[in-house]
Amino acid sequence: MSNKIQPQPAIPWEERPSGSSDVVWRYSGNPIIRRDQIPSSNSIFNSAVVPFLGAYAGVFRCDNKKREMNIHRGFSPNGIDWTITDAPIDWECADPEIGRFQYRYDPRVVWLEDRYYVTWCNGYHGPTIGIGYTHDFERFTFLENALLPFNRNGVLFPRRIGGRYFMLSRPSDNGHTPFGDIYLSQSPDLVHWGRHRYVMGVKDGWQSTKIGAGPIPIETPQGWLMFYHGVLTSCNGFVYSFGAALLDLEQPWKVIYRGGAYLLSPQKLYECVGDVPNVAFPCAALYEAESGRIAIYYGGADTVTALAFCKLDEVLDFVKVTNDL
Amino acid sequence: MSNKIQPQPAIPWEERPSGSSDVVWRYSGNPIIRRDQIPSSNSIFNSAVVPFLGAYAGVFRCDNKKREMNIHRGFSPNGIDWTITDAPIDWECADPEIGRFQYRYDPRVVWLEDRYYVTWCNGYHGPTIGIGYTHDFERFTFLENALLPFNRNGVLFPRRIGGRYFMLSRPSDNGHTPFGDIYLSQSPDLVHWGRHRYVMGVKDGWQSTKIGAGPIPIETPQGWLMFYHGVLTSCNGFVYSFGAALLDLEQPWKVIYRGGAYLLSPQKLYECVGDVPNVAFPCAALYEAESGRIAIYYGGADTVTALAFCKLDEVLDFVKVTNDL
Amino acid sequence: MSNKIQPQPAIPWEERPSGSSDVVWRYSGNPIIRRDQIPSSNSIFNSAVVPFLGAYAGVFRCDNKKREMNIHRGFSPNGIDWTITDAPIDWECADPEIGRFQYRYDPRVVWLEDRYYVTWCNGYHGPTIGIGYTHDFERFTFLENALLPFNRNGVLFPRRIGGRYFMLSRPSDNGHTPFGDIYLSQSPDLVHWGRHRYVMGVKDGWQSTKIGAGPIPIETPQGWLMFYHGVLTSCNGFVYSFGAALLDLEQPWKVIYRGGAYLLSPQKLYECVGDVPNVAFPCAALYEAESGRIAIYYGGADTVTALAFCKLDEVLDFVKVTNDL
Amino acid sequence: MSNKIQPQPAIPWEERPSGSSDVVWRYSGNPIIRRDQIPSSNSIFNSAVVPFLGAYAGVFRCDNKKREMNIHRGFSPNGIDWTITDAPIDWECADPEIGRFQYRYDPRVVWLEDRYYVTWCNGYHGPTIGIGYTHDFERFTFLENALLPFNRNGVLFPRRIGGRYFMLSRPSDNGHTPFGDIYLSQSPDLVHWGRHRYVMGVKDGWQSTKIGAGPIPIETPQGWLMFYHGVLTSCNGFVYSFGAALLDLEQPWKVIYRGGAYLLSPQKLYECVGDVPNVAFPCAALYEAESGRIAIYYGGADTVTALAFCKLDEVLDFVKVTNDL
Amino acid sequence: MSNKIQPQPAIPWEERPSGSSDVVWRYSGNPIIRRDQIPSSNSIFNSAVVPFLGAYAGVFRCDNKKREMNIHRGFSPNGIDWTITDAPIDWECADPEIGRFQYRYDPRVVWLEDRYYVTWCNGYHGPTIGIGYTHDFERFTFLENALLPFNRNGVLFPRRIGGRYFMLSRPSDNGHTPFGDIYLSQSPDLVHWGRHRYVMGVKDGWQSTKIGAGPIPIETPQGWLMFYHGVLTSCNGFVYSFGAALLDLEQPWKVIYRGGAYLLSPQKLYECVGDVPNVAFPCAALYEAESGRIAIYYGGADTVTALAFCKLDEVLDFVKVTNDL
Amino acid sequence: MSNKIQPQPAIPWEERPSGSSDVVWRYSGNPIIRRDQIPSSNSIFNSAVVPFLGAYAGVFRCDNKKREMNIHRGFSPNGIDWTITDAPIDWECADPEIGRFQYRYDPRVVWLEDRYYVTWCNGYHGPTIGIGYTHDFERFTFLENALLPFNRNGVLFPRRIGGRYFMLSRPSDNGHTPFGDIYLSQSPDLVHWGRHRYVMGVKDGWQSTKIGAGPIPIETPQGWLMFYHGVLTSCNGFVYSFGAALLDLEQPWKVIYRGGAYLLSPQKLYECVGDVPNVAFPCAALYEAESGRIAIYYGGADTVTALAFCKLDEVLDFVKVTNDL
Repeated sequence: MSNKIQPQPAIPWEERPSGSSDVVWRYSGNPIIRRDQIPSSNSIFNSAVVPFLGAYAGVFRCDNKKREMNIHRGFSPNGIDWTITDAPIDWECADPEIGRFQYRYDPRVVWLEDRYYVTWCNGYHGPTIGIGYTHDFERFTFLENALLPFNRNGVLFPRRIGGRYFMLSRPSDNGHTPFGDIYLSQSPDLVHWGRHRYVMGVKDGWQSTKIGAGPIPIETPQGWLMFYHGVLTSCNGFVYSFGAALLDLEQPWKVIYRGGAYLLSPQKLYECVGDVPNVAFPCAALYEAESGRIAIYYGGADTVTALAFCKLDEVLDFVKVTNDL
Repeated sequence: MSNKIQPQPAIPWEERPSGSSDVVWRYSGNPIIRRDQIPSSNSIFNSAVVPFLGAYAGVFRCDNKKREMNIHRGFSPNGIDWTITDAPIDWECADPEIGRFQYRYDPRVVWLEDRYYVTWCNGYHGPTIGIGYTHDFERFTFLENALLPFNRNGVLFPRRIGGRYFMLSRPSDNGHTPFGDIYLSQSPDLVHWGRHRYVMGVKDGWQSTKIGAGPIPIETPQGWLMFYHGVLTSCNGFVYSFGAALLDLEQPWKVIYRGGAYLLSPQKLYECVGDVPNVAFPCAALYEAESGRIAIYYGGADTVTALAFCKLDEVLDFVKVTNDL
Repeated sequence: MSNKIQPQPAIPWEERPSGSSDVVWRYSGNPIIRRDQIPSSNSIFNSAVVPFLGAYAGVFRCDNKKREMNIHRGFSPNGIDWTITDAPIDWECADPEIGRFQYRYDPRVVWLEDRYYVTWCNGYHGPTIGIGYTHDFERFTFLENALLPFNRNGVLFPRRIGGRYFMLSRPSDNGHTPFGDIYLSQSPDLVHWGRHRYVMGVKDGWQSTKIGAGPIPIETPQGWLMFYHGVLTSCNGFVYSFGAALLDLEQPWKVIYRGGAYLLSPQKLYECVGDVPNVAFPCAALYEAESGRIAIYYGGADTVTALAFCKLDEVLDFVKVTNDL
Repeated sequence: MSNKIQPQPAIPWEERPSGSSDVVWRYSGNPIIRRDQIPSSNSIFNSAVVPFLGAYAGVFRCDNKKREMNIHRGFSPNGIDWTITDAPIDWECADPEIGRFQYRYDPRVVWLEDRYYVTWCNGYHGPTIGIGYTHDFERFTFLENALLPFNRNGVLFPRRIGGRYFMLSRPSDNGHTPFGDIYLSQSPDLVHWGRHRYVMGVKDGWQSTKIGAGPIPIETPQGWLMFYHGVLTSCNGFVYSFGAALLDLEQPWKVIYRGGAYLLSPQKLYECVGDVPNVAFPCAALYEAESGRIAIYYGGADTVTALAFCKLDEVLDFVKVTNDL
Repeated sequence: MSNKIQPQPAIPWEERPSGSSDVVWRYSGNPIIRRDQIPSSNSIFNSAVVPFLGAYAGVFRCDNKKREMNIHRGFSPNGIDWTITDAPIDWECADPEIGRFQYRYDPRVVWLEDRYYVTWCNGYHGPTIGIGYTHDFERFTFLENALLPFNRNGVLFPRRIGGRYFMLSRPSDNGHTPFGDIYLSQSPDLVHWGRHRYVMGVKDGWQSTKIGAGPIPIETPQGWLMFYHGVLTSCNGFVYSFGAALLDLEQPWKVIYRGGAYLLSPQKLYECVGDVPNVAFPCAALYEAESGRIAIYYGGADTVTALAFCKLDEVLDFVKVTNDL
Repeated sequence: MSNKIQPQPAIPWEERPSGSSDVVWRYSGNPIIRRDQIPSSNSIFNSAVVPFLGAYAGVFRCDNKKREMNIHRGFSPNGIDWTITDAPIDWECADPEIGRFQYRYDPRVVWLEDRYYVTWCNGYHGPTIGIGYTHDFERFTFLENALLPFNRNGVLFPRRIGGRYFMLSRPSDNGHTPFGDIYLSQSPDLVHWGRHRYVMGVKDGWQSTKIGAGPIPIETPQGWLMFYHGVLTSCNGFVYSFGAALLDLEQPWKVIYRGGAYLLSPQKLYECVGDVPNVAFPCAALYEAESGRIAIYYGGADTVTALAFCKLDEVLDFVKVTNDL
């Protein structure tokens, strides 16, 4: 997920707390983005960030005080302190049939070939996956809805594989979908998608109700590292945690390892209390190859944005050791 | 909603916190009534207060430790510090068929012509709107159930309009109703109701599941100001916020403006954690004409009673500017 | 339910089949009205008839081929052979707010004081009870919606009691209501309704899901005879049967006897097969005082109209003998 | 939907019954295929037929006595008398990941450019749209799943439009979907699909729960004639009827006319009684340009196959006259 | 299921219709018991019969016109023509706590050691399995509720195995249970039950929603032959068919063969139309060892009683050939 | 619940806070067991403790980070500070059919005759009641599943009554059961259970959805004191509180007194926030006869373990005074 032509900024980082043996640990300054960080916002969460011009840029899910869901851009010198634009992104689109705003949420951003592509859950007679791009985080162009409704959690791979673009997604229904597996689709042009393949589905425990891809997969020599959220249904509602799996480099619908346990579950007040209690939902991860450091951005309680850290080799160990295919 | 023959006590008030631009802001001493303020109570919330004898009186929803729902009276010198009677109100009623206690909750109180009328959600083979009155907050008389079940949030207007009494209400069903619009009914005698009119229904976002009138409407030269609650259904349950609309003075089923955003949503621990998480539910508002100040009483998490403040002109501006009819 | 100023036509009648001991028996020529009896109709059922000018007139629920629900008038020389007007009744109404057509179904007709009143389930932001009248079955005037939504099966009594009008109804919700009891409301003017009383609710067996009043109650020296439908929920849907109860003459919310068994349940093909299988739903009954004969009109499978017969004294015996209050 | 290189066989036909003014009328010999016409079948319905070698061929949904759903081929000299192969179609597929049988149902067949394409609801971790083809109804090749689950009622257009293939479909969920609108997707190669457009959704009455395209659209100078099924939910289940709409020739997601009423609803015993009562579900239509005759094949009660007739000009009149966009 | 000390009457029998290859075929005189065969009955179905004194006796589920569910005894000279007692069985029970009537339905009868045992679904704060016995079909003694609620379809084995009594049952919930597998319990005394074992659960197709044991298992040298019902859920409700499986003689919770297809599904009007459409539900089977003939009694549409025939060796072949464990 | 042959350790105890009049009060050091007290745990709650060798031992529900539910043993010198084994209990079982691990949760422990018996909710094709025992908290032997699925909250009495063992349980279904009453079963051998009796069911308010026995009943001269949880369903989910009842000494299915109010409801953050908000769920109580002191162990929010105190005589007074049978 790196943009080769730009200097990589320092990755946000904080060491694991002493005494802890957690593979993923929280940033002590969480939440890094408050719910009311911009005047119009009810909440800011499920956010996606990338290195940009030696610093960081991002797109952010901001629900306003009407509880309309939309995505905004923001900038940060260090990946922790963010300035978010109060007005939502204004998507340029030639075809008003598809360009009309209904709702937009849960964005992901990826540097792919020559520009930043954004995917998000886009309202078009139901939730589906919108694709657009920007070169500069100033102008944003809406391309198309990649898939038919009902779909959520569309996540692009950061490069072509075998000449084709790849996207993970989670077919859904028109409400608070109580089911959901991860599939993969392929495309010659980012507009037409086919050769759909099943990747993996729910299992017992923390991921027994539905699962969905999180950040852009991270390429490693052993495979694509995919963080993903899993949902358990208690008698008092959904609980969103997240874990990881390793996908085949060339045929990424084939799962090599799948961690049996979650890496992080909602346990802090900012994850357990808010507009949707008990949610930890990752949408972006920064990876620094030299140090092996990973910074994960995740939404807390569908209300605020939080940060967590881990190391690539430890996560790879984790998915192998706890492998539960 | 003023009682002309009595001296008006000082309205509870605290200025807007510096730095805030919120139209409605919370009292810093919230919650003003704890869940266990009287020996018998499990929780005290959704409460209605009026000026009374130079001070304040009110009726309060108190659920006891059986989780029976009932209404109690209380008194306060300043509208903030309350003494609530441990025993529920004992309603006098000639007809045992309708006077028998099943449950009573979510009261409103209004000075209307010559006495204080109380309306509440009354259990009579299902929830409906009970009407009673008191002259002195000592003796309370039960008049009738105004409407057939299933109904909730019955709110009287503080004067006749065109010779008739008016009441807002929210037709419901026999459980945790997942729908609900606001209607209006008219009466020559407060006992027989007809000429029912639809006022307004749900919209997207914070008010997409159901809505219901809150405090007694406040008469302004431009129309009746109605605060009302709206409910959004997340995957983890209902979220109760509140907003405002302006109704026509003579034909109050006609909506002039309707604020598109909420004025206050559950964000504080005492609104987000309790018997029903994520509830801010207003049942009373005090208005001081000279200063334009409004004090809103609302329940937090169906557990405690809280207070918020705003100014009439700012709220009127808000409903116009964010108008979303 | 008689119109004193007009000659009473001969009541439709057929003797009980030999060998049968049923209290209510079917007409051998059933169904008397086919689903496609008029060009526009998908189905004609749940119909109400009254003596009129020495013959019979009626209002009929006709669903058209859009499956819009509306009510039509019709005439018959003998109560069996019907000519129904293809165009729906055109209701005159001064206030377009309430006069606008949404849907109308399940009418009842009664001669009350000086005209024929029609009540039906009327769509006004949800189903409620519309009231209108006609003098001549040519012009029909819409009066008001008597009650707030959600309500169905509004049935007027054929005379004032203690100076007030009385109406039975069944509070409901906004869909295929899976609950429902019978209540009674009182009115000085047919527009404003109050003094609501609970009449009776569901019981085990054939009437375990919901019940609703059917034809206009028949006055007898012993009380008001009320035929009513009851619904049982099998694993394959609702089953609508009908039975009878006797209500107090002066306080008709007090039930004197309630027959424990159904009088007729869906057993014939025209009751078991159609748009809604397993429905026998009565909306009108003709009573001939001299002979004690009663003819009951009921809908079959929400598709056709059928006729059944019984004798008043036998029905009164039945409710006493099988009494199950 | 014609195969230019083959002589067109005589279209099945029977004149409208005298006295009837129905736009669509049933074949007097219905059902034309019984539920047990082949040894293995529990039921044969929702079938698709095309002219083939001067006679007719078809693919048929046959549920076997395990109630497995699969598709079989069949042949007929006249379109009425059918010989169906007892063994299901054996699809050739290079990739076992997608070729493995889960379930197949509700096929459509179309002559497109150089071969017969078959689409059907294909089980691949949920119902989606499988595409395959045959040249001779002997060998059948499975191409790909065109779309992600969950989808049903995928219907191809019989020619490219603007160089692209077009397919109608109905996004669904993983069960007895209680919602569903018609969408359209475009493809350069029948494998990758994009440029998804919303065509039309549910309306009141007979089509208030869900709708889905039926036979291959028929090209007329005025637009594409699309027969489609609509579903109403009664308290006793779904009722499947069918009607018609006219789509724009070049931009077929734009609806020109939409008939307000159904053309045929389940009213005969073979439509009302069976494995799924109250279903009339069309999957194929033969059109004879010279005579304007259309023969529609539809499933009855998800149990048998029936036939109905109409004339193109009358159907076009119907959608205009009853237009209800 | 034979009573050794009594002469075996001729088994009811009719040869397979010519041209048919069905393993199970219907009696041409079906239904053998009408819904109104006794004065009090709404319906008579799900009935159990045994040889008795050279003729046949049985217990019958009769729902009366209140739609109360109860069981009655009956007698027949030939197993086809039945005389059923209008009054329900009067169970003697020393302990009124468990003897009080709530509801009783779906009985089975078995000759076990020295008397006829009856099991049925017994209402005791929820449906569970009642056990009683009779020596003479005159006096019936209620023993105990074998299991805790919620349970249905309790079926005893006709002899002890390894010294213990065995019973099949289907754990359920308190309504129209949408799930259900077959389990087995063991007892030293018919009162205390334990060593519960799972036998088999739902599979795809006709038995995908729930399954339950039907008649008393038939002992064969190869194992216990168990007929059982299976339920499929269509969009319009449950469909009850029946099939067969072979259980291990000594450890009958081990399934040797399980027929993949149903043996009989609801296809005739008396199976498809009635109080619960689409039900064929077997509760008894007579087996004649010399001829290998089996007569199966089953309820049709929860309304009438029907009869079907098969041969033991053909059924054993069927479960082997279609085996689908 | 005392083990006569061992010295009784000092009961955990803290006096009632001054100013409080609560019958049950919380330990000031709550929670006594954190969610991450052992490396593998996601949460530790619903725990059962007994005196053991002059100190305390217990079995604990620990959900691991896969959210698998299992039970672990632990030891404490004082009942407050606990050392829990990171590996789950390894149950010895001769029959792999029933010994295979699916899930285990909500254990209870009781000293009965000569050993410690453990009961818990055991996954065997659905949740049911597993019974096992240990002599030393080192080796644990699995006996059998006492009852058929679906069942939860199986609680043994601490001695035989009339020669038979007694167990309370709560028949359930296969999910988040929204109903549930307390029943009692009897056994000669702890393996076979029968003579099932209904004890008590839901009532209004805090116990209106379901109830279930908590700790081992405490024998008093006046009867068995049973603490039990009760569940109320708010629009945002279940709320678990607990109260008490007194059961007859010889016929413990007969309730002598039942406290109308709860004794403790979720009000503290560790009860209101966690994996399942709003849960206080007791599984064990220590009773010291000399002092009358009782220490109750209960789970908070299905996440942590907490402790509360009361006195036997005050609880007995409470159930009498607030008696609400």
